[in-house]
Amino acid sequence: MSEAEVSPQPAIVLVRPQLGMNIGMAARAMANFGLSDLRLVSPRDGWPNPDAGPAAAGADHVLAEARVFGSIAEALHDCHLTFATSMVAKGLPKPARTPREAAGEMRSSGLKAGVLFGPEAAGMSKDDLAGISTLITVPTDAAFGSLNLAQTVLLVAYEWGQAAGLTIGRPELDPPAPHDELAGLTAQLTGALEEAGWFHVRARDASSRRTVAAMLAKSGWTSQEVRTWRGMIRELEGARRRRGQGMR
Amino acid sequence: MSEAEVSPQPAIVLVRPQLGMNIGMAARAMANFGLSDLRLVSPRDGWPNPDAGPAAAGADHVLAEARVFGSIAEALHDCHLTFATSMVAKGLPKPARTPREAAGEMRSSGLKAGVLFGPEAAGMSKDDLAGISTLITVPTDAAFGSLNLAQTVLLVAYEWGQAAGLTIGRPELDPPAPHDELAGLTAQLTGALEEAGWFHVRARDASSRRTVAAMLAKSGWTSQEVRTWRGMIRELEGARRRRGQGMR
Repeated sequence: MSEAEVSPQPAIVLVRPQLGMNIGMAARAMANFGLSDLRLVSPRDGWPNPDAGPAAAGADHVLAEARVFGSIAEALHDCHLTFATSMVAKGLPKPARTPREAAGEMRSSGLKAGVLFGPEAAGMSKDDLAGISTLITVPTDAAFGSLNLAQTVLLVAYEWGQAAGLTIGRPELDPPAPHDELAGLTAQLTGALEEAGWFHVRARDASSRRTVAAMLAKSGWTSQEVRTWRGMIRELEGARRRRGQGMR
Repeated sequence: MSEAEVSPQPAIVLVRPQLGMNIGMAARAMANFGLSDLRLVSPRDGWPNPDAGPAAAGADHVLAEARVFGSIAEALHDCHLTFATSMVAKGLPKPARTPREAAGEMRSSGLKAGVLFGPEAAGMSKDDLAGISTLITVPTDAAFGSLNLAQTVLLVAYEWGQAAGLTIGRPELDPPAPHDELAGLTAQLTGALEEAGWFHVRARDASSRRTVAAMLAKSGWTSQEVRTWRGMIRELEGARRRRGQGMR
């Protein structure tokens, strides 16, 4: 069981969806975040729809389990919390939430929720929305708010996944080298630079040494990387010496 | 100026993108969250690409300002922070962040960031990623992680928008009615119920009255809604009385 299944997962309810491709893309977006309860209210072209499968990109189980209902009320029959996505608050006297806020409420309630998504072109009517308790609006740029159906499903599903605690695998990183290894590198580098004549302005000598130490201190290099640097410095010194000998 | 422009906005860098449609959908996703700095590294079919415009759904300014570069290094030339999206951490010894964490870091740094997105089919190579400081991985369900290019851009752009403080317009809602109006409704309803003979089991009388008061207390009804209820109760009482008279 994935982490997203600790709470009852919300039903994703597509109201009068038009394009099979969008249903498929919505299914794909759902599966990415552990959702599989897809409900269709009066899909325009019937169901199943041959255009949905390719767009689902492997989320076939979501399409196979999708259920069709004749009305919004039937589709929401078992949902204790009801939401509807809405790009603009059409003068509806209902509380509005961001996807993140809504996901947090669904998650903390422990109750089955249903989220309505309107048809591609027209959105939902005031009659569709009258019996819904809360609107979900995606915060977009004031100058350009244009999310399509599958993108809106993606953002709601994504926020559910985040609220349900989905995490990422983090590479196991070697830690920065212990200080004595860094001090050894610093000493080797300043020694090599001294021999090479880099500290040629005596008045700035101490300051230059601090600059070198500070640069190495913030490098974050691991023990292996410190060893690599020590090898590179030895190699550069050897090349300089050989060049020096050749020029003599 | 939108709120997203308070910090320098990150550059969205598509590396060797294949389909013009995906470039257009990425541009649309960016515009939704106030982003417009689109950079293309060696797009497969050249640039401009006639398939990009329709998919941008109005985000034409992003496409018009897009810049093409011959290498990742050139595309990132002015970026102080460098990120690359990666569905799996391919054994790369680099820190990984969620989109939300990365957006927070970009936002709080106040520095120009660049985010790489790999080509549709293959993703990026280890050579592509060697010079990048941090990976971004979307937390997805363990059983199904399949985001396409434009969806990944959408989630990164969305989280940037959230970190940049994009907000939603919230409908101005009338507050719940003051307590005296609710008490008036409660008194009217219990009076009407008394006259109708609803409190017929004397032992449960007080408990029934508390039930009615508690239901009205959690209704959240506004002053207008309380008035509507008082009218409906009067109407129901009138109907009962008329029916009673008719039956006599």
